[in-house]
Amino acid sequence: MSKENDRDVLLYAPFESFVHTTFWHKLSQIKLEVDKLKEDARSIWGCYTCTTPPAMCSVHVDFSSFNHDFQDQPLALPMLGTIINKNTLESFKEYDKVQLLEEYGQNLLSSITTTEALKNPTLLSRFILLTYADLKKYHFYYWFAFPAMNLPTIKLLSPPRKLNSVFNGDQMQQLLDAYTNIKDWKQRPFFLVQVQSGNVSIRPLCDINLLNQRPHKENENNITNSLYLGFADPSVLPANPGWPLRNLLALVLYHCKGILGKQLQLVALRLQKCGDGQSWSVFSSLVLNIELPTEENAPPKATPSWIGWQRNEKGKFGPRLAKLSSSMDPAKLAETSVQLNLKLMKWRLVPDLDLDVVREIRCLLLGAGTLGCAVARTLLAWGVQTITFVDSGTVSFSNPVRQSLYTYKDCLNGGRPKAVAAAEFMKIIFPGVNASGYQLHMPMPGHTVGEVMLPEVKKTVLKLEQLIEDHDVIFLLTDSRESRWLPTVIATSKQKLVMTAALGFDTFVVMRHGMRHQMKDVAVAPDDLQLGCYFCSDVLAPGNSQVDRTLDQQCTVTRPGVSSLAASLVVELMVSVLQHPLRGHAPAEGVSDTNKTASYDSQSALGIVPHSIRGFLSSYEQMICVSHAFQNCTACSKMVIQEYQQQGFAFLMAVFNNPHYLEDITGLTEIHQKSEDAEVWELSDTSDTD
Amino acid sequence: MSKENDRDVLLYAPFESFVHTTFWHKLSQIKLEVDKLKEDARSIWGCYTCTTPPAMCSVHVDFSSFNHDFQDQPLALPMLGTIINKNTLESFKEYDKVQLLEEYGQNLLSSITTTEALKNPTLLSRFILLTYADLKKYHFYYWFAFPAMNLPTIKLLSPPRKLNSVFNGDQMQQLLDAYTNIKDWKQRPFFLVQVQSGNVSIRPLCDINLLNQRPHKENENNITNSLYLGFADPSVLPANPGWPLRNLLALVLYHCKGILGKQLQLVALRLQKCGDGQSWSVFSSLVLNIELPTEENAPPKATPSWIGWQRNEKGKFGPRLAKLSSSMDPAKLAETSVQLNLKLMKWRLVPDLDLDVVREIRCLLLGAGTLGCAVARTLLAWGVQTITFVDSGTVSFSNPVRQSLYTYKDCLNGGRPKAVAAAEFMKIIFPGVNASGYQLHMPMPGHTVGEVMLPEVKKTVLKLEQLIEDHDVIFLLTDSRESRWLPTVIATSKQKLVMTAALGFDTFVVMRHGMRHQMKDVAVAPDDLQLGCYFCSDVLAPGNSQVDRTLDQQCTVTRPGVSSLAASLVVELMVSVLQHPLRGHAPAEGVSDTNKTASYDSQSALGIVPHSIRGFLSSYEQMICVSHAFQNCTACSKMVIQEYQQQGFAFLMAVFNNPHYLEDITGLTEIHQKSEDAEVWELSDTSDTD
Ligand SMILES: [Zn+2]
Ligand SMILES: [Zn+2]
Repeated sequence: MSKENDRDVLLYAPFESFVHTTFWHKLSQIKLEVDKLKEDARSIWGCYTCTTPPAMCSVHVDFSSFNHDFQDQPLALPMLGTIINKNTLESFKEYDKVQLLEEYGQNLLSSITTTEALKNPTLLSRFILLTYADLKKYHFYYWFAFPAMNLPTIKLLSPPRKLNSVFNGDQMQQLLDAYTNIKDWKQRPFFLVQVQSGNVSIRPLCDINLLNQRPHKENENNITNSLYLGFADPSVLPANPGWPLRNLLALVLYHCKGILGKQLQLVALRLQKCGDGQSWSVFSSLVLNIELPTEENAPPKATPSWIGWQRNEKGKFGPRLAKLSSSMDPAKLAETSVQLNLKLMKWRLVPDLDLDVVREIRCLLLGAGTLGCAVARTLLAWGVQTITFVDSGTVSFSNPVRQSLYTYKDCLNGGRPKAVAAAEFMKIIFPGVNASGYQLHMPMPGHTVGEVMLPEVKKTVLKLEQLIEDHDVIFLLTDSRESRWLPTVIATSKQKLVMTAALGFDTFVVMRHGMRHQMKDVAVAPDDLQLGCYFCSDVLAPGNSQVDRTLDQQCTVTRPGVSSLAASLVVELMVSVLQHPLRGHAPAEGVSDTNKTASYDSQSALGIVPHSIRGFLSSYEQMICVSHAFQNCTACSKMVIQEYQQQGFAFLMAVFNNPHYLEDITGLTEIHQKSEDAEVWELSDTSDTD
Repeated sequence: MSKENDRDVLLYAPFESFVHTTFWHKLSQIKLEVDKLKEDARSIWGCYTCTTPPAMCSVHVDFSSFNHDFQDQPLALPMLGTIINKNTLESFKEYDKVQLLEEYGQNLLSSITTTEALKNPTLLSRFILLTYADLKKYHFYYWFAFPAMNLPTIKLLSPPRKLNSVFNGDQMQQLLDAYTNIKDWKQRPFFLVQVQSGNVSIRPLCDINLLNQRPHKENENNITNSLYLGFADPSVLPANPGWPLRNLLALVLYHCKGILGKQLQLVALRLQKCGDGQSWSVFSSLVLNIELPTEENAPPKATPSWIGWQRNEKGKFGPRLAKLSSSMDPAKLAETSVQLNLKLMKWRLVPDLDLDVVREIRCLLLGAGTLGCAVARTLLAWGVQTITFVDSGTVSFSNPVRQSLYTYKDCLNGGRPKAVAAAEFMKIIFPGVNASGYQLHMPMPGHTVGEVMLPEVKKTVLKLEQLIEDHDVIFLLTDSRESRWLPTVIATSKQKLVMTAALGFDTFVVMRHGMRHQMKDVAVAPDDLQLGCYFCSDVLAPGNSQVDRTLDQQCTVTRPGVSSLAASLVVELMVSVLQHPLRGHAPAEGVSDTNKTASYDSQSALGIVPHSIRGFLSSYEQMICVSHAFQNCTACSKMVIQEYQQQGFAFLMAVFNNPHYLEDITGLTEIHQKSEDAEVWELSDTSDTD
C-alpha cells in the first residue's frame, strides 16, 4: 500500500496499556489469598477516556480493576477485561495466544449478533490480560490484547475534519451538554449524534437502525439535518481515530446492511479541557466521512478474523515485564514473599495447616547460643512474628561459626550482649519480625544469693515472670540443667507450653513438657497420663553444677550438626503441637513407659505429635519416647507449683540458697533414704545366702 | 612499728610482675596444642635486671619464658618459675595458695640446705604463676608469687650509702669489669665482693664460707681489705634493696652460723647507664651494713614460713586480669577460639578424631539455597577452611528467612548473586575462611543448547570441570534432579567424593555417592558391593523437569526444619566418611538391598558410616539405607563415564540436546522395552485365564 493510498484509508490508533503499580499489588494479594494455585480467568475492569489531558490513547488498570462493579467517574469509559494469571513463566510463554484471541473475538461477535452490544455498548470494548506473577522477585510478565475484528479496508471519502469546521458553537455546546448528561456509563462509549433542524442531540446505540433509513448520499455540509455514528475517541492524532472504532464498524457491518458500500459520517468525540481548566469543549473532535465496504467484502460473508495483541516497548509482538521490586516498599515485599512460601505449603500440600496460629504464637527463647540462634531461625522460616531472646552472655570469638545470628563484628571490643545482638540480627534478616532481647542472669537452685545480689535477683525473677506471662511458648535452650528449673516452674504455673532441647556430644533430646489440665470441659488425657517435664525423669534436684565444670563442659562441646538437628526438631515439634486440636494437651504418640496406651488421636495435620525425640549421631538413629509426669518432680509436681504460687519469691530464695530444699519438699529425700535402705538390705541378703 | 624504728630496719622492695602479651599468646598456643586439658605445672623462665633503665623492680615474662633453656642476654638475671594453668575460673580461685607457697618455699629451702643454691644461685630467685586462661574471651586471670622466707627483723646498722661514697673510681671500675665479665648467668644474681689490697674482685657465692672467717667487727671504711655479700639489685629505691636479698639472707642464716647476731656488709649492685648511653656505671649501687639475727631468732631453730603472693593493682592480695581481646589481632583471636572448640572434642571425647583432614578438605557446594547455606555453616563449624559456592540465582525476598547466609539487604535492587553473597557472608562470620562464589547456570540433560548459547555453555562446563578438579568433596544441593547430573558425571570421573541432599515437603534423603575403585592394593569392597549414586535407583534419565513446574515446585516448598536436618546430616556424614580409614571407599553400614552383607569394618572414630539416611518428619523417623551401583545408571555407570572421558563436551552436548540419548547408551531404553513387553504378556495371560 503506497503512502498516497494510506491517506485515503481509515487507520486506527492502537491502545496503549497503562498498569498502575496498585494493580500488581492487588493481583499479588488475590493470588496469595484467593486464587492461590488456580489459573482461572478473572473478570476485571479497564478504563479509558476521550479527554485531553491525558493526551494518550491509553487503557488504565489499577487496584480498582478487580472490583465487582465498574467504579464510575465522570467521563470515564469502561472496558471489560479478563485476566489470566499463569503459575509459571513457561505456561505463560506457551499459552496459545492465537486461540485465546479467537475465543474472545467469537464472544465479541456473539454480543454483536445477539444485539446485546446494542443494549450495552461497552461489550464492544474489551481486553485480555495474560500474566505471570513471579511473587518471589515481584516481576510481572504481562501481555494485553484488545480484540478487534480484522475489518476490510475502509475508504476515507475526505480528510478528517475538526468538528468546529462542521458544527457551529451552539451545536458543539449542545453536543457537549448531551454527552455529559449521559447518566448510564454503559452508553458513553458508542452512540448516535443526530442533527434535527439544526439542533444536536445524542441517541443511544440501540437506535442504530436509523442509519439504514438515511438517504444514500448525504450532503456533507448539511448541518441542519443529519445523523452521525458517534464514539468516544481516545486518540489524539489529527487523522486517526482510536481503536474502539474498529468494533463499532464491525457492528455496523452486521446491523446496517442497508448502507454497506455506501457513505457513513462519524463523530469521533474528543473532549478538551478549556482555558479555564474546568469546563470541556468538543471542538477538537473529528468528523470522518467514510465509505463502508460492500456486502461481498464484509462479514458475515467473509469469516471475520481477530487482531489486537499489543506490541511491547521494542515495537514487537511480545510480553512486557514490570519489575516492581525496585518501586515497591521492600519491607512489604519481603513480607509478602515470605508469606507466599508458607502459603504454598498449605495450598499445595496440607490444606488443613493453620498458618495463623503459628504466625501469632509468641515465643520466648531462654538461651541465645547455638540452639537459641537455630531455633529462632527456624521459627522465622515458619513465619512466627514474635520472638524474644533471654541470655546472660556476650558474643565471643568462637560463637559465630556455630551460632547463626552473630558475625565476627559482634565479638569485637569484648563482645555484644547476645540477646540484644540476636534480636537485632533477626531484623536484619527480616525487618518484619518483632524481635527483642534481654540480658538476664538466670537464678538457679543451689546458686546461693547473697544480700548484695538480692535486689538484682528479685528484679530478674520479676522480669522473667513478666516475660513468660507475655509469651505463649517458652523454649529452654540454655546449656545447663539447673538454669532450666526456674523457667520450668514459672511456665508450668502459668500453663504455658514449654519446649526443651538439650545436647550431648553426638546426641540430643528434644521434648515438650506436659501441660497441667485446667479446662475441665475439654476432652483431655486423664491425669495419670499427664506427660512429664525435663526434670521428671531425674531423682536429683538441680544443683550448682557449674562449679568445677571443666573447660570442655563450659564450651558445650558437640558435633556441630547436633545443635541444628535438635533446633530444627524442637521447632517442628512445636508446630506439630500447635496443629493438634488439643495443642499442648495433645496426647503423645509412641510407646508409653507406663504401658498405658493413649486412646486419643495423637495426629495433627502434620502427622504425629510425640512427647520427646532422641537422636544419636554415632549411629544416625532417632527415636521417639513418652514419659509421664513424676509426682515427686522437682520442677512440675503439685508440691513445687503450689509452694511457688503460695510463697512466691520466698520459696524461690529457699531453693536458690538451700541445695536440699527441693528434695526435701518433694519427698525425694525420703525416696533416697528408702532406696538406700533397700540397697543395704539387698546387700546383706546377698551376703547371707552366699 | 614506729617510723623511727622503720629507718633502722631492713625493708625490701617487692617485685612487680610484667607480662608481655606474647606470653599470653604462647600460653594459649601451648594450652591448645600441647597441654589441652592437662593442668600439670610447667617450668618457665622469668627475667629481671639490676640496670637503670628500666627503673623498675620488675620481673618480665614473654613468649621466650616457655623455652627449655634460659635465653641469655647481657646482664639479664634469670628467675626460675612455675606456671600452673587451671581449666576453670573456679579451680583457679579455689586453689590452695597458702599450701602452694609452702610447697615451693620448702623446695627453695631444700636447695639452700642441700647447698645446691650455692652452686646455682639462681635457685634462690623463683616465682609461681597461677593462671586461668579463658580462651573464648582471651581473658587471662593470673597471680604471681615470689616465694621468700619470712625472715626475722634485720637491723640496719647505718643508713644505706651509695657505693661511690665507699669505693673510689678505680674500685668501682674494677667491680663493673668483674661483674660484666661473669660468663655463667647462673652466677649473676648472687656473689661475693672482695677487696684485697684495695683491689676489687668478685667471688662466686659458693665461697660464702669466707664470711665466717672475717673479723667480727669490720671497719666500715676499710676499703683496702674487706668482704661484702653481693647481689644484683633490681630495686631503685634509695633506702630499700630488692626482693632477691630475702632469700640470700636466708641462705646466710643456714650457711654462715658463725656471723649470726653479728655485722654483715652488703653490696646491692645497681648498674646505671652512663651519659654516653652505652657504658654502665656502678656508682648508684648501695652499701648496706646490717646486723644478722641471733641463732635463737633465726631458722632452722624457728620453723621458717613463706611469703610472696603479689598484690594486685588495688594493693590487695588477689589475682589480676589481662584482657587480651582488645589488644590482640581479632582475626587471629577468632581463629584460635574456633580451633579451641574443635580441639576440645578431640581432647575430651574422641582422641582418634582427625581434625586436620576435616580442616583441609576443600568443599564445592553446588547450590547456595536453603541447603547450601546450611551445609556451608555446618562445614564452617567443623573447621573446614575452603568452601566454594556455585549458584545461578540471585537473592530474592523470600530467601533470608530460610537461607542463613543472606539478609534483607541482599534482596534489594533485584537481589545479589547468591554464590557471591554467600561467600562474602562466610567471611563476615569468620574472616579466616577461604570462601569464594561463582554464578554459573548448570547445563542439564534435555535442556537443549542452541547455537547462540554454545560458547557460554562450553565455558560453564570447563569452569565446572576445573572447580571439581580443585576440590575434594562435591556437594549436590540444587533443587532439581537434572541439575545434579553433570556434576555427578564429572565428579565420578575425577574420583571425587560426592555428597547429596534432597528434600521433599516433610522428608529428606542424604547420601554419599559410591566411589569407583582405583587403588588395587588397598583392601576395598569388591566391585559388586560398589555403592550407588543419586541416579542409580532411577530407571528414567534426568530430563527437562523445569518445564511446567508449578509455582510451588519452584519454591521447593518444605517444612522449614527439613532443610537444616538434611544439611546437618549430610555434613556429619561427610565427616564420618573422612574419619574412616578408607574414606570414600568405606563400606556402608546397614542392611544391603542385595542381601550381601559387608564384611568390612564400617565404623569410623565417630561411629557408623552409612550410605544414605532418610528422614520423615510426619512420623519423626529416620532410617539408614544401602543401595548398590546400578550397571545401567545414567550418571555413574561405566558406559556414561567412558563416553564422557572419551568424547568430552561432544558427549555432553548430545545429552543436553537429545532427551533419549542417555537412556539409549545406558541400555535403559532396551530395559523399558523389555518391561513393556512383559507387561503386555502378563496382561494377555491374565485375560486368558479369567
Ligand atoms: Zn516434671
Ligand atoms: Zn549411579
